Amino acid sequence: MTLIVLNFKTYREATGQAAIRLAEICEDISNEYSIKIIVAPQIADIRAIVEAVEIPVYAQHVDGVGHGGFTGHITAASLQAAGATGSLINHSERRLKLAEIEASIAACRATGLSTIVCTNNIATTRAAASMRPDFVAVEPPELIGSSIPVSKADPDVVRGSVDAVKKIEPGVGVLCGAGITHGEDLKAALELGSEGVLLASGIIKAKDQRKALEDLVAGAKR
Amino acid sequence: MTLIVLNFKTYREATGQAAIRLAEICEDISNEYSIKIIVAPQIADIRAIVEAVEIPVYAQHVDGVGHGGFTGHITAASLQAAGATGSLINHSERRLKLAEIEASIAACRATGLSTIVCTNNIATTRAAASMRPDFVAVEPPELIGSSIPVSKADPDVVRGSVDAVKKIEPGVGVLCGAGITHGEDLKAALELGSEGVLLASGIIKAKDQRKALEDLVAGAKR
Amino acid sequence: MTLIVLNFKTYREATGQAAIRLAEICEDISNEYSIKIIVAPQIADIRAIVEAVEIPVYAQHVDGVGHGGFTGHITAASLQAAGATGSLINHSERRLKLAEIEASIAACRATGLSTIVCTNNIATTRAAASMRPDFVAVEPPELIGSSIPVSKADPDVVRGSVDAVKKIEPGVGVLCGAGITHGEDLKAALELGSEGVLLASGIIKAKDQRKALEDLVAGAKR
Amino acid sequence: MTLIVLNFKTYREATGQAAIRLAEICEDISNEYSIKIIVAPQIADIRAIVEAVEIPVYAQHVDGVGHGGFTGHITAASLQAAGATGSLINHSERRLKLAEIEASIAACRATGLSTIVCTNNIATTRAAASMRPDFVAVEPPELIGSSIPVSKADPDVVRGSVDAVKKIEPGVGVLCGAGITHGEDLKAALELGSEGVLLASGIIKAKDQRKALEDLVAGAKR
Repeated sequence: MTLIVLNFKTYREATGQAAIRLAEICEDISNEYSIKIIVAPQIADIRAIVEAVEIPVYAQHVDGVGHGGFTGHITAASLQAAGATGSLINHSERRLKLAEIEASIAACRATGLSTIVCTNNIATTRAAASMRPDFVAVEPPELIGSSIPVSKADPDVVRGSVDAVKKIEPGVGVLCGAGITHGEDLKAALELGSEGVLLASGIIKAKDQRKALEDLVAGAKR
Repeated sequence: MTLIVLNFKTYREATGQAAIRLAEICEDISNEYSIKIIVAPQIADIRAIVEAVEIPVYAQHVDGVGHGGFTGHITAASLQAAGATGSLINHSERRLKLAEIEASIAACRATGLSTIVCTNNIATTRAAASMRPDFVAVEPPELIGSSIPVSKADPDVVRGSVDAVKKIEPGVGVLCGAGITHGEDLKAALELGSEGVLLASGIIKAKDQRKALEDLVAGAKR
Repeated sequence: MTLIVLNFKTYREATGQAAIRLAEICEDISNEYSIKIIVAPQIADIRAIVEAVEIPVYAQHVDGVGHGGFTGHITAASLQAAGATGSLINHSERRLKLAEIEASIAACRATGLSTIVCTNNIATTRAAASMRPDFVAVEPPELIGSSIPVSKADPDVVRGSVDAVKKIEPGVGVLCGAGITHGEDLKAALELGSEGVLLASGIIKAKDQRKALEDLVAGAKR
Repeated sequence: MTLIVLNFKTYREATGQAAIRLAEICEDISNEYSIKIIVAPQIADIRAIVEAVEIPVYAQHVDGVGHGGFTGHITAASLQAAGATGSLINHSERRLKLAEIEASIAACRATGLSTIVCTNNIATTRAAASMRPDFVAVEPPELIGSSIPVSKADPDVVRGSVDAVKKIEPGVGVLCGAGITHGEDLKAALELGSEGVLLASGIIKAKDQRKALEDLVAGAKR
């Protein structure tokens, strides 16, 4: 089943009340088109969004630390208490050390949270997959926030990531991201072997968020 | 007015439902003893605690970034949307770069959040105070989580911090922390010239959190 | 006395043998124009350059750690053993935590190395100066590597830094940097109250490094 | 062929002149016992040690950045210019982000430097091996600097690492480390399937460094 993960980042159009409205749009489209949409709002917004919608809510980041003297860290336990069911890990804008990624995956696994580890190329995709998260999401950093979709600009990184993961840990899913905006981008991403996309600005900064998301989803179904 | 800041860290006894109960205890004691108590829970718990109590709720950390491509960061805007009214910055367990501290203070000021910058010695207290947060909180790292109060183990770092701040930025308040558990510790901290304390494990890990907090507050009033 | 600090960064034109040649050019110009030039090559190049020239050689970075289990860190002791007499600290491309800056200054002081702490605006200049390094060097990050000199693009950040340091720690010198290339840029920097400049690409990437450095120095003397 | 890597860390007994003496001891023992010993001194000491001995000299850390605006970073090019032939990467005391590890390995490969990526458990060993360094070196952090050898305290992490690497990238060598001091520790490490050890304090802090190293090597030959 195709998976769309909408990363709210810290955009004004996806913070506080606006984040709740955007999550509701995602839920509507998800129901209407029978497509799985996960929203990833800011940590402080998670609880309000969990109360507002029934689609899965993921954190944008989780630290691999447990209970104790870890002031300012984001624990899997606190995310779960707020109602999140998963987390992005190692996004290009919040890179982690190798040992931290492994600890974050382990902490999520122990708490029952799903994990999507972001990577920047085939080599790091292999490394991330070898630690057995639920998904890896490969995103060439230079395309993030651009309007050039990875599926067009660098199809080989997607294909190569899919192949590498199949060999090393076939149970791990592969997403791709960076520059994804339109239905054809999503379609191309699926044709390259990925199971879905991670996207952000293309939808969030659109004049009409609902229309943009609808176009993306509908376009991919054509 | 004496200020007590209770840092919930990521302790199990201060996460999720337990965090709400602990905040309610703090509110009770605050009302009963007419003392200002600020609670600093995990980011994901802020909104639920803001809904449960009327005492101020601070974040344990805030990043100095604004709206945009800052996945996984904690913005002042998101904290405010969740109902927080301030934040710790640069806690010993979540140290920041100098430019980040300055940006965090600026972001909080622009958003109307209060700031408490944590420091580890007199030199860094001077530096932190020079950036004009609302408070600095000096905590010798080796005493954090110990049962040896800074006010007894190293009174000079408190006195020296108070003196340094008075010279450099008299409008900035001085708190101290590390090893504070009992009323006499708080009392000693105030006598050294600080306006209050930052504390954590002494209360949170106590068998009876309410009794521990009551002893702290009552002891200081004697 | 005017001070010019040439930061070699990791430019190809300032690595290995090329670094030695560039340091020799700096020494020639320093002698010819009776101006103080400090070279700051990569750590691994320090010893060879110290053997080749007699002008001061600084490191680009030093960690505030001592002897012990600190694999991969740059200690003041190792820099001194290699013949360096000072170090940049907290350069915009190698930012440090507040407590690390303080520890680096302390380590250098204890070892007899001079310190230049880099900052990005007036507020961080104040904070850095309050920790009493030998110099602060204010460099607006957006101008670093550009051809727009800070002395023209943002004279107020230089003036404001000079004023702030005079008030808070008059014994600390003020340098400025970012976009400095020509003699007039240096001249303007001095007129704004700074004691010298920190520069890099303008000289290192010049077709003729010697001529570029000569123009800078000669222009400032006019 | 058994490989011994001696990490000088920042110990006083392995800095500056003392580092040269220690490297000479390593060379003597290497020749006498026909065993491969690599020394990993501080970056600023590399050139002097390369001039003094003919055994391989590795850096303790290398950044995955190239030529350009990377002040304070350690480039593969600068290490090579100083005569190093390899580098540790991601040591437990200098952990790197996943993307940085990959970039460091790529930079070393492009420059002709060998790579030893340090890891903390089987999962991160798998991830590191999947990026194809020359070696991975697994070191449980809690045993580093202790006198409890990993080969005794946690033989499964060594065995498990050897197995995992054989499956995922059989061309990558496996070292182990943490608490290795005596010949029997080295012997046990080899019997568990590793090709050698990474060690530090056991030799460097010994009253008689030569005797300690001799005991290690001789003991393993028995």
